[in-house]
Amino acid sequence: MRTGTVVVERFTSKLLAGNRAGDPAERRVPIYLPPSYADSPARRYPVCFVLTGFSGRGRMLLNDNAWSPALDDRMDALIERGAGEMILAMPDCLTRYGGSQYLNSSATGRYMDHLVQELVPLVDARYRTLAQREHRGVAGKSSGGYGALVLGMMHPEIFGGVACHSGDMYFEYCYRGDVPKALTQIQKAGGLAKWLAAFEEKKQKSHDDMLTLNILGMAAAYSPNPKSEPFGFDLPCDLATGAFREEVWRRWLELDPLSLLDPRADALRGMKLVYLDCGTRDEWSLHLGARLFARRLEDLGIAHQHHEFDDGHMNVSYRYDESLPRLAAALGG
Amino acid sequence: MRTGTVVVERFTSKLLAGNRAGDPAERRVPIYLPPSYADSPARRYPVCFVLTGFSGRGRMLLNDNAWSPALDDRMDALIERGAGEMILAMPDCLTRYGGSQYLNSSATGRYMDHLVQELVPLVDARYRTLAQREHRGVAGKSSGGYGALVLGMMHPEIFGGVACHSGDMYFEYCYRGDVPKALTQIQKAGGLAKWLAAFEEKKQKSHDDMLTLNILGMAAAYSPNPKSEPFGFDLPCDLATGAFREEVWRRWLELDPLSLLDPRADALRGMKLVYLDCGTRDEWSLHLGARLFARRLEDLGIAHQHHEFDDGHMNVSYRYDESLPRLAAALGG
Amino acid sequence: MRTGTVVVERFTSKLLAGNRAGDPAERRVPIYLPPSYADSPARRYPVCFVLTGFSGRGRMLLNDNAWSPALDDRMDALIERGAGEMILAMPDCLTRYGGSQYLNSSATGRYMDHLVQELVPLVDARYRTLAQREHRGVAGKSSGGYGALVLGMMHPEIFGGVACHSGDMYFEYCYRGDVPKALTQIQKAGGLAKWLAAFEEKKQKSHDDMLTLNILGMAAAYSPNPKSEPFGFDLPCDLATGAFREEVWRRWLELDPLSLLDPRADALRGMKLVYLDCGTRDEWSLHLGARLFARRLEDLGIAHQHHEFDDGHMNVSYRYDESLPRLAAALGG
Amino acid sequence: MRTGTVVVERFTSKLLAGNRAGDPAERRVPIYLPPSYADSPARRYPVCFVLTGFSGRGRMLLNDNAWSPALDDRMDALIERGAGEMILAMPDCLTRYGGSQYLNSSATGRYMDHLVQELVPLVDARYRTLAQREHRGVAGKSSGGYGALVLGMMHPEIFGGVACHSGDMYFEYCYRGDVPKALTQIQKAGGLAKWLAAFEEKKQKSHDDMLTLNILGMAAAYSPNPKSEPFGFDLPCDLATGAFREEVWRRWLELDPLSLLDPRADALRGMKLVYLDCGTRDEWSLHLGARLFARRLEDLGIAHQHHEFDDGHMNVSYRYDESLPRLAAALGG
Repeated sequence: MRTGTVVVERFTSKLLAGNRAGDPAERRVPIYLPPSYADSPARRYPVCFVLTGFSGRGRMLLNDNAWSPALDDRMDALIERGAGEMILAMPDCLTRYGGSQYLNSSATGRYMDHLVQELVPLVDARYRTLAQREHRGVAGKSSGGYGALVLGMMHPEIFGGVACHSGDMYFEYCYRGDVPKALTQIQKAGGLAKWLAAFEEKKQKSHDDMLTLNILGMAAAYSPNPKSEPFGFDLPCDLATGAFREEVWRRWLELDPLSLLDPRADALRGMKLVYLDCGTRDEWSLHLGARLFARRLEDLGIAHQHHEFDDGHMNVSYRYDESLPRLAAALGG
Repeated sequence: MRTGTVVVERFTSKLLAGNRAGDPAERRVPIYLPPSYADSPARRYPVCFVLTGFSGRGRMLLNDNAWSPALDDRMDALIERGAGEMILAMPDCLTRYGGSQYLNSSATGRYMDHLVQELVPLVDARYRTLAQREHRGVAGKSSGGYGALVLGMMHPEIFGGVACHSGDMYFEYCYRGDVPKALTQIQKAGGLAKWLAAFEEKKQKSHDDMLTLNILGMAAAYSPNPKSEPFGFDLPCDLATGAFREEVWRRWLELDPLSLLDPRADALRGMKLVYLDCGTRDEWSLHLGARLFARRLEDLGIAHQHHEFDDGHMNVSYRYDESLPRLAAALGG
Repeated sequence: MRTGTVVVERFTSKLLAGNRAGDPAERRVPIYLPPSYADSPARRYPVCFVLTGFSGRGRMLLNDNAWSPALDDRMDALIERGAGEMILAMPDCLTRYGGSQYLNSSATGRYMDHLVQELVPLVDARYRTLAQREHRGVAGKSSGGYGALVLGMMHPEIFGGVACHSGDMYFEYCYRGDVPKALTQIQKAGGLAKWLAAFEEKKQKSHDDMLTLNILGMAAAYSPNPKSEPFGFDLPCDLATGAFREEVWRRWLELDPLSLLDPRADALRGMKLVYLDCGTRDEWSLHLGARLFARRLEDLGIAHQHHEFDDGHMNVSYRYDESLPRLAAALGG
Repeated sequence: MRTGTVVVERFTSKLLAGNRAGDPAERRVPIYLPPSYADSPARRYPVCFVLTGFSGRGRMLLNDNAWSPALDDRMDALIERGAGEMILAMPDCLTRYGGSQYLNSSATGRYMDHLVQELVPLVDARYRTLAQREHRGVAGKSSGGYGALVLGMMHPEIFGGVACHSGDMYFEYCYRGDVPKALTQIQKAGGLAKWLAAFEEKKQKSHDDMLTLNILGMAAAYSPNPKSEPFGFDLPCDLATGAFREEVWRRWLELDPLSLLDPRADALRGMKLVYLDCGTRDEWSLHLGARLFARRLEDLGIAHQHHEFDDGHMNVSYRYDESLPRLAAALGG
């Protein structure tokens, strides 16, 4: 089998410098170059930005597993079986809170701008991409699926195709049930700062730990508030009384893909591919959100593909076998 | 140790006859008579109605466990250690949907009326109770704790003391997160009627099964709708689209103890005892609701006792060791 | 439906008095009398002793559950559907260590003798039984299934029929894997006495707690040693070094039903019924032992029924729907 | 921070060619070169072979995680904090059965020979190692810890230092309890070949799947039998009857580090470092084996370090922070 190459770009972002969360501005961004790249110095390729889920960064897409190939091996195999050749870029938008949702936020940093204004030009400058939106896609899973959809809706001038696997949406279902659980953990720790310090200290992170970090990460992305101490974001619950905070929650809902869709329908209408799928046993009920999203796309007359599969939320990177060949075909032409 | 006696009343309710859920009108109601009862034919006793949690009926309070005594053995031991003697009545308000929440509902039956209008008079007629509200209490755990609070708030002319262990409240936290999970199960089964038939057929009920039944049971209690097929209640989600139904949810919230409290504050103000507790690791986050409820009682100047303990929601019947002696003291004087 | 009656015998055992484990000599033994018993004063009935599993005692067989009837309700329903009427006696052979395996042991007490020499005569004396072995059976589940088999093999002069649901056997598979886990728990607690004191203090028993108690209970039953401090039994592992103790383990194996079978084949050959079943997902792999036992019965030419069902070890009391009618038929004639 | 470099060697083994399991002879072996390597062309370095656990191969040591650095990042950080610079080689000894235990076996291949006769010379030839046993170590976790110990005991002419984290040993405790569970899975699938085909087909591997594969992997490593169909190894249980096979089990025990130790004591006595540790909540009870091994080293007068930590078996790669600096110090001098 012919194999591609991975180059790891070490890159210092100007936009992320001095971010409030204190996360590094230097990032490592792996770039997958397809098998023919080295031998075809004149050829240009479509490019897809692949976004990891919560707690991930690009390098993790290359993690090896005996029964689930790393993204480079997976793409090699797909190309071997007939998929179009495509460059894959794997951004690192990880934050101290487990992620950025690929949004701009005063609490974390300008991650969406970083991706669109820094990484996209960098990749176009250093590699032989087809540097037009028609040939540039974005894909991801879970929070990365959210990022792919939102980048597509907010930056249709940059991306011409979108694939979303088990993406965060319909926040009513996917996050709300975890709010009281996170609240309990934070109260027990004695507040946000103490909770986070203890979390970072722990060698093993428990299920409750990750659930709580997830609520922190979402709050940092969806409800930043520069005046809110200690970290510059509001939680959707009151740490003193325990009550739910509807006014914060409404800010989250504004960034729910289901809220974003109607005003940005034209962005998706202009895509060469809108693909979404989700497992029907998704532990965060994201399949319900995906159905509502697909139904709304249908109502709006936006061409799309919506698939379901019999699985849960975790370890479903095999779904890239569905999206990457479709993206390569849609973006390659 | 001197021991009490349990008599099981077999009783046919007129109020439950012909209920829409098809549940039996004949019920077995165990009555615990304290040790001195048989030997003191002139003596009268306070009485406490003890309400089981979801999926329970009175007889279950007598279930034996090597390390957690049945209610009769527990009361014997408490009296031996100095608690006042008290009659305990254990109603059966179980329904096909796992419970009634001790409310009247067109979908299940008039369980609150049954308790207040049928069982209370029956116990007073057949046993030597002190048959005034000052000497009659109601206690329970989980859905039974909900029932105790609500019966106290709605029928202060009947009950003079209330104890609520890990009671359902702040529905925002305790139920809402389970709605999408129940929805998924019901959709997979092909609708409500098919889901329920399959559930009743299963020899082993899974965690998902019980979670789903719980949402059905709450819908039957909180959002009955005689026109809604097949069972006469509305779910807080749309089975076709999967969307959350805010208008149904608002009906649930009207029956949240936190909503009921303000307009019925005087009912609780007149109690000889208002006791509530909850484990700080409650899996349904009921400790958060209990805190909000206690805080509101405080604001309203209503005397109460609010305790927390380091445990979860299940297998906490040892907490009756706290409530029953307090009730016996408050109701016995 | 016609219903039977439950009488609870309070009984003080002479044989259990002063037992080393310090367990009470007074026991409560529920007796189920079938529907016709009261109205047919001349009629005599077959009797079955029903043995609970580990951590149980007779009264627990009467525990109520919304979807799994208590033993009295279950027997009523079976008789309604045509099963023969039969008296059921529910011994209490619980010990501080969670059970006695219905054996005689210097560490726990003479439970087998208690059952055979005290309880059987008591039931025959007080109730209208058919007081011959042909009409007396023994049944049980898990440790109770073990007890049923062993009582049948060791006392064929008393019992004429045996039913064993998910009974402990092939100790190689069902216990051995838990030995190192129990060892770790005991070592962490600082020894046997400290472990047991902490266990008894705990309001919630964890999975590890019960697993450890189970190993203690089996050691007390299978490898008693009056000289061994503090409790008079040997563990199959060395608490100091952690090494497995083959010589203790061999004592356990002597009481494995698979070891007992060959020398006692005639006892089972003379039974009116030998019934055994097990779920094929039994968490202690007891289905593998049951198959080996059934295969050996086959080789020995002993008539028996061996069934499997698609379930695990817990909450399978519905299997009494299979054994009790068969026992009633075999013992009733 | 100064950072090292990873080079991935693609290497075709002669010794693994044509192995019975059908696994590839071509392997990728990542080599970590420390920060000063590129700038110090005359300098030579000690080298450590780092062995992955079951279901792993060298590349997995480089898997990224937000809170647990990949091996290259970890080594960079250790060197930054003062550890000696050292080359790390990460062999790939994965098989279809999840691993080779780094042994030679007719069922899997000559993995020990491959490592010692092929990889060690390759690394010495291509990189500036200190190519004597005093400067060459072997370390690993779980099955890799087993491999490290066994390579040290069997090839002291090659390795001068050993570190074993949570290594497989005292098979009595770590494997035996899983045999009946694996047996049940294989029987349900209809035999070994069908089980393995179904396993390889599954997109998600369950806990039972991995447990079963583990028993297959150990059988392939410890009890190969060229005549045994279909795969050339014997299981320690009879697939037809379900009985345990003591004669196969004895072959496993011969390869237990606790059996290997006495005859190979001198091999370990000559090591510059013998380090072992284990978490005291190891789910396979490996802490008990480590204690017995350390106790025996003590008795034999072999210098060693034995540590325990408060954790389980999984996700403990942070323990390399303990072993790698010690190895670098011991091998570097």
